Amino acid sequence: MKNVAIIGGTGYGAIELIRLLHTHKHLQVKKIISHSQFGEHITSVYPHLTGFVEEPMEEFEVTSLIEEVDIVFFATPAGVAKELIPKFADSTVQCIDLSGDLRLHSKEAYEKWYGKQAAPKELLNQAVYGLTEIYHEQVKGAKIISNPGCFPTSALLGLIPALENKIITSNHIVIDGKTAVSGAGRTPTASTHFSDTNENITPYKIGKHQHIPEIDQVLSKIAGDAINTTFTTHLIPMTRGLICTIYAELAKEISTEAVIDLYRTYYEKHRFVRIKEIGAFPTTKDVYGSNYCDIGLHVDERTNQLIIASAIDNLVKGAAGQAIQNANLMNGWEEAEGLDAIPIFP
Amino acid sequence: MKNVAIIGGTGYGAIELIRLLHTHKHLQVKKIISHSQFGEHITSVYPHLTGFVEEPMEEFEVTSLIEEVDIVFFATPAGVAKELIPKFADSTVQCIDLSGDLRLHSKEAYEKWYGKQAAPKELLNQAVYGLTEIYHEQVKGAKIISNPGCFPTSALLGLIPALENKIITSNHIVIDGKTAVSGAGRTPTASTHFSDTNENITPYKIGKHQHIPEIDQVLSKIAGDAINTTFTTHLIPMTRGLICTIYAELAKEISTEAVIDLYRTYYEKHRFVRIKEIGAFPTTKDVYGSNYCDIGLHVDERTNQLIIASAIDNLVKGAAGQAIQNANLMNGWEEAEGLDAIPIFP
Amino acid sequence: MKNVAIIGGTGYGAIELIRLLHTHKHLQVKKIISHSQFGEHITSVYPHLTGFVEEPMEEFEVTSLIEEVDIVFFATPAGVAKELIPKFADSTVQCIDLSGDLRLHSKEAYEKWYGKQAAPKELLNQAVYGLTEIYHEQVKGAKIISNPGCFPTSALLGLIPALENKIITSNHIVIDGKTAVSGAGRTPTASTHFSDTNENITPYKIGKHQHIPEIDQVLSKIAGDAINTTFTTHLIPMTRGLICTIYAELAKEISTEAVIDLYRTYYEKHRFVRIKEIGAFPTTKDVYGSNYCDIGLHVDERTNQLIIASAIDNLVKGAAGQAIQNANLMNGWEEAEGLDAIPIFP
Amino acid sequence: MKNVAIIGGTGYGAIELIRLLHTHKHLQVKKIISHSQFGEHITSVYPHLTGFVEEPMEEFEVTSLIEEVDIVFFATPAGVAKELIPKFADSTVQCIDLSGDLRLHSKEAYEKWYGKQAAPKELLNQAVYGLTEIYHEQVKGAKIISNPGCFPTSALLGLIPALENKIITSNHIVIDGKTAVSGAGRTPTASTHFSDTNENITPYKIGKHQHIPEIDQVLSKIAGDAINTTFTTHLIPMTRGLICTIYAELAKEISTEAVIDLYRTYYEKHRFVRIKEIGAFPTTKDVYGSNYCDIGLHVDERTNQLIIASAIDNLVKGAAGQAIQNANLMNGWEEAEGLDAIPIFP
Repeated sequence: MKNVAIIGGTGYGAIELIRLLHTHKHLQVKKIISHSQFGEHITSVYPHLTGFVEEPMEEFEVTSLIEEVDIVFFATPAGVAKELIPKFADSTVQCIDLSGDLRLHSKEAYEKWYGKQAAPKELLNQAVYGLTEIYHEQVKGAKIISNPGCFPTSALLGLIPALENKIITSNHIVIDGKTAVSGAGRTPTASTHFSDTNENITPYKIGKHQHIPEIDQVLSKIAGDAINTTFTTHLIPMTRGLICTIYAELAKEISTEAVIDLYRTYYEKHRFVRIKEIGAFPTTKDVYGSNYCDIGLHVDERTNQLIIASAIDNLVKGAAGQAIQNANLMNGWEEAEGLDAIPIFP
Repeated sequence: MKNVAIIGGTGYGAIELIRLLHTHKHLQVKKIISHSQFGEHITSVYPHLTGFVEEPMEEFEVTSLIEEVDIVFFATPAGVAKELIPKFADSTVQCIDLSGDLRLHSKEAYEKWYGKQAAPKELLNQAVYGLTEIYHEQVKGAKIISNPGCFPTSALLGLIPALENKIITSNHIVIDGKTAVSGAGRTPTASTHFSDTNENITPYKIGKHQHIPEIDQVLSKIAGDAINTTFTTHLIPMTRGLICTIYAELAKEISTEAVIDLYRTYYEKHRFVRIKEIGAFPTTKDVYGSNYCDIGLHVDERTNQLIIASAIDNLVKGAAGQAIQNANLMNGWEEAEGLDAIPIFP
Repeated sequence: MKNVAIIGGTGYGAIELIRLLHTHKHLQVKKIISHSQFGEHITSVYPHLTGFVEEPMEEFEVTSLIEEVDIVFFATPAGVAKELIPKFADSTVQCIDLSGDLRLHSKEAYEKWYGKQAAPKELLNQAVYGLTEIYHEQVKGAKIISNPGCFPTSALLGLIPALENKIITSNHIVIDGKTAVSGAGRTPTASTHFSDTNENITPYKIGKHQHIPEIDQVLSKIAGDAINTTFTTHLIPMTRGLICTIYAELAKEISTEAVIDLYRTYYEKHRFVRIKEIGAFPTTKDVYGSNYCDIGLHVDERTNQLIIASAIDNLVKGAAGQAIQNANLMNGWEEAEGLDAIPIFP
Repeated sequence: MKNVAIIGGTGYGAIELIRLLHTHKHLQVKKIISHSQFGEHITSVYPHLTGFVEEPMEEFEVTSLIEEVDIVFFATPAGVAKELIPKFADSTVQCIDLSGDLRLHSKEAYEKWYGKQAAPKELLNQAVYGLTEIYHEQVKGAKIISNPGCFPTSALLGLIPALENKIITSNHIVIDGKTAVSGAGRTPTASTHFSDTNENITPYKIGKHQHIPEIDQVLSKIAGDAINTTFTTHLIPMTRGLICTIYAELAKEISTEAVIDLYRTYYEKHRFVRIKEIGAFPTTKDVYGSNYCDIGLHVDERTNQLIIASAIDNLVKGAAGQAIQNANLMNGWEEAEGLDAIPIFP
């Protein structure tokens, strides 16, 4: 049994890690670190955890962490993980960062999109981008993981098989993202206020979302050429779930069936990606609470476009679930360990 | 005071007409016609109308309608209005069809997308497509109105100023539609069952939606050239409201400010279209219960795309409200008569 | 046309007053006062009002208000109206307080339940409790109105006919209140955060709600004896609407039909109270956006209890609508002026 | 490993059993029986199960069931289980009935409240009422379990400690039930239609709910005297979760702290009942997807009432979860086997 510390104990990322790790055979949560509420018990913030977590939250203290834990998950706001991860440099502790700190290789891009100082280059170089199905081998050997953003996870798993197999062109890729409100985190704000958010669809951060450069960086590397996608995000009145509807120009004539076959082959060793049958499309509820990414495909012959819909639970495959999936690979365990639950429906 | 009959008394279109006409200075609801429940009182289906509607619903009977009413609104399923409207041919009764029966000029297109026999050509020729802001003058002289679909209303009001002014190209137009569940009507089905629909985003009718040819027909006419748009629809867990997020390639360099100016000029005589300021985007709740169409615009310089978001209440501007707006124009009344209410918020 | 000022311009009470007054024949909104955001335009907070409100919000200034307006609505937090209303003492300005400042006659009770200093006795004495249907005659002659709370409006309209007619005993009255989230106002808090509130029922302020003494004060006066009700409140995941389910011991044998008759007679001159037929119960959606209070009744013979369900829109009959209803009576206008809209459904 | 058959494969009870049993150490789902859709694959109805269930659904056939399975769960509509369970009489198969068929000991009561013919007396006599925490010992020795209704589970766990310890009187007990929509099952109806149900609170079956005699039967037996409770039910716009707010007259002076102590002692060996601290109340989201029943308590000194709020997930502790809990006891396994998951939050 290895020991885990979770940094950022009062956020949704942390409690989703606690929920999923509770069923994990090889990992147990040893410490929950909260800068704002250390000393308190997490059940005072999250009563649903009553009976599951005994110890109070602690302040971050690197020496005791190095002594007592094997893996640290950073479920922290932007700017925190890049300061703390280097403190584990001389230890064997594995670090998995759920924030965006280590996702962008370009310091300029990070500073432009995040409005903060970027992580040092050497740290960025050590971090492996943990889009598990795509960077499977690199993840296995990693010590530091940069866990992908929720929208990039959905968009990239949906796009990469088509792009890599050159059945789409790289111009005019449009990604229309729709997300549940939990993606905005735990802090109450005007845009997450129930009365304003319920019965409402809200486009937000149009042209400014920090997931844009993350998506483009990965796609560009895969295509071997600079790709700029058009990516928008919409807040939907629900708690969990995220879907990207993706539009890309076909590079050649191909049937929907053939595209589906290609995707099934691409992901055949990856149980967490499920490709829908012809005519069927994924819904967010079909992956609720699970680590699945469900993908539907349609060749629109009228317009020569490939339409892809890719659905995940933003807190699982889009955050805590994929982080654990990466931890499993890094340690040579069954990839689905702790992640085998059936989606909750209805 | 002119008299109104509403055909299709137990659907959402009918009750929204009743709600809006209640405040109308020149129109009163005289008859509510229901084929399935004539003889019953509408309040047995819709208790919220208690105190507002006295008479029971009646069976359709053309002679008495011609004698007693001046305007007939058809809030009927596909295939009904095209059978009934010709019966008023020799009368002065104005007919406004909220169904799709008279929207497509091409009989082949209707039969392909609706899977039913099309209306006769002469009837199609008489009907004016009632996208009020765009076909203002034609509506004024019409006797038969084909009221636009909910998605086409939102998409076309969002696209036409840019297309007409040639600031976008007509290739690669993508329209990502998101709608509340009331668009699916009153009949309970698996896809409108609360437990399945709540906390869920459901892409549906991908590549098959009957609003595709309607949008393309109008855009093609305006562009003077065949346009095929890529259009998808998603069911969102809310009761009312619809937004189209639209992506089009810019035909020339232009700033967001300039696009906003152009749209404001285009709609300056049309109070029901409100153009958002730079950086702001419409939400469906901002138009809830009202006849407004709110439009936000953004030039995405990274990708040379114009991003347009266009929000309406699907039951008002997308159905009953626009129908009344058309009736107002046809009769020389104030365009906003009966439609002047402030959106309900929160 | 009389002029209105609304104090507390950025709250939900204010915008609901603006919405309803927009259709009022005798009243127009002249000034919107906001202490926190004066100088700003209300559309920067509430974009749905774009096109309806021209002037920026102002700071409270009593001299110009006395000069320019005839009625002031206080949609302010607890403790504000009791300070400001006395400033209008020597003017003819009518004051309608939507807050709880003037509701409790006992200073001790106010200080216990609100945790603030009570209004001066002379001010309390001048204020008429504006539960319109019950205190109709007193409201007509009032200059200062204390507008009832949302739960008391629903509970009292539901209970009073039975209590006054002595068909129930005054012991063991239980009122189980269920409210939409907008009742908690505009300020984002943990308990109104979408992700926590959605898909959740939350009992709150059990035994501590400030509407308890308000309900008991009115019932005690009507019964001529001290009544203590058991009253609880639950937050429900929806934006608008409130229902009280009320349980009272029958004082004599009576049928459901007879109770319904009694209620219909009691409210026969009051159009905003609608009594359901036998076997039917009100839902909050049936009164959405309207000033109606729908009441359903059932005699439970097994337990000798009268069960009453009383539904209102918490922002209309529970706040802004009833305030306007009171203003109408005070000025000798049609009681339903500005309040005649059909509830919005679905 | 024992084998399970689930009868009623296309309902919500069945898929919740499948979800929970997937993590069970000693049970595996061997057969899914559906009378209406045998031969089809369950994933055609429930795509979220893709990858988890391989075999198509089958028609009910008692011989093969007796041969191949050890436990049969009946997640069937009223009237089915009482016909099928006797077919297993001569076998060792354990039968757990999630329907109401075997809950009422009185045939007259069943026929009155369910409107169907009751099960034969001998079958009723064999069935143990599976309210696990209360009938722990009887469940251990049972071969046939009548699994409690969702509301009775919540109400009885909330009331029994107070009633058994005589701190409340048995008159005037009021139970106000509030439930998510999934309790109404999978079949689309007007009352589960999204557009009508969303943003709505709907009282239903007032005075007629079939859970009334079930609650009264258990309470009467415990009190040793006939108890008639006043019980109402309200539909709340959410998918999962149920809360009963219960009001009972105190039989003696007692503090909230003392009541909490008493409840904690009563349930100290029962991990699935969690008693809240003073001043705290349960919410349905705190038990979402889990087998917990969270109970909050408040002594209302003003009215001499004990207020109890008892929250469960209607599909887990209110149905499938408690059924599995009973199966665990019947077979001598760890009571929480398959039920140890942390509630899903947010």
